[in-house]
Amino acid sequence: MMKILIVGGNGTIGSKVRDHLSKKHEVITAGRNSGDVNVDMRDGRSVKAMLEKTGKVDALVCTAGEAKWADFDAMTEEDFYIGIKSKLMGQVNLVSVGKEYMNPGGSFTLSTGILADHPVLMTTSAAMVNGAIHSFVKAVCLELKNQIRINVVSSGLVEDAVDHYQDYFPGHNPIPMKKVVNGFVKSIEGAGSGEIIRIYDNC
Amino acid sequence: MMKILIVGGNGTIGSKVRDHLSKKHEVITAGRNSGDVNVDMRDGRSVKAMLEKTGKVDALVCTAGEAKWADFDAMTEEDFYIGIKSKLMGQVNLVSVGKEYMNPGGSFTLSTGILADHPVLMTTSAAMVNGAIHSFVKAVCLELKNQIRINVVSSGLVEDAVDHYQDYFPGHNPIPMKKVVNGFVKSIEGAGSGEIIRIYDNC
Repeated sequence: MMKILIVGGNGTIGSKVRDHLSKKHEVITAGRNSGDVNVDMRDGRSVKAMLEKTGKVDALVCTAGEAKWADFDAMTEEDFYIGIKSKLMGQVNLVSVGKEYMNPGGSFTLSTGILADHPVLMTTSAAMVNGAIHSFVKAVCLELKNQIRINVVSSGLVEDAVDHYQDYFPGHNPIPMKKVVNGFVKSIEGAGSGEIIRIYDNC
Repeated sequence: MMKILIVGGNGTIGSKVRDHLSKKHEVITAGRNSGDVNVDMRDGRSVKAMLEKTGKVDALVCTAGEAKWADFDAMTEEDFYIGIKSKLMGQVNLVSVGKEYMNPGGSFTLSTGILADHPVLMTTSAAMVNGAIHSFVKAVCLELKNQIRINVVSSGLVEDAVDHYQDYFPGHNPIPMKKVVNGFVKSIEGAGSGEIIRIYDNC
């Protein structure tokens, strides 16, 4: 049994990951306004405060992080920084601070999405931060110590978000939640590191 | 003959691109402290001021941008923001502001590097911003109007930087400058858009 912290553990994807992992593991959820502990991952000090509360973990999972969706013509510099601070540096902060609270052999599992590889309209920022995390994971896995691993799950449009997002993803096949959850299980219970676990369908 | 603006046109790569393109085209160079015009691409207003001076162009090339190299353990949040503000958002600013100064059918050519795909030690930040630009280019090419194209040249360790960087890139084959220059020519004089022009050797 592992002690697993899920940042964003009450979100669309996080809640399914949480429910599955809870069957075998001790799961702690974190969120900005919900969960067992609160955290604003944009702030390294908040991440540290969260981990002081939870203590050391065997796995830290992130299913949180936002980025602004808008036409490129309408995107300001400030709009780009929403995603940079949240989905990009928020996840970097989790690894940077979290590595000191990770048990040997533990793992980080970050989240991105298909936009990194196959963007759609209005996703210059979302694609950018997702691609940034893919390369970050490949780079940081070379430097983590104590057999600590890191992977990232990059899923296509998930089943549970289809109602809200399908118009933005013409022709994308929804990814069953069970497959998304398995991406996280592969990272957490598997042995790989530096992997971009792509869960795409027709591309 | 095209009117081509090269930001970073006096750097290691930029100067070779400039020399080659000058044989056929009108080339203007820009840099923070050198070149025909000055620009701090981290600041959108500075980019706009530069383009007000040059007027409309047929191609905007960026061979500038920095990111901090350091062990991940030593990297602070502020250190990550050096690369985010310069190599990442600096290039986004060039496209965001520059699209209003681009003649129809013109092109942007950005620069990244092999670290996006094959990072080495101490490059969590450099890898990250390079990967971010790759996904940004794929996303923004869907939205540019007036047949404006965008590509990015991602080169391995270039011949002219070998003396300085070879110890960081064990076993990497230096990329001849002529091949690097051809990457830019392919983007500027070719017809493709949304391409990541990878100039790698043994990977």
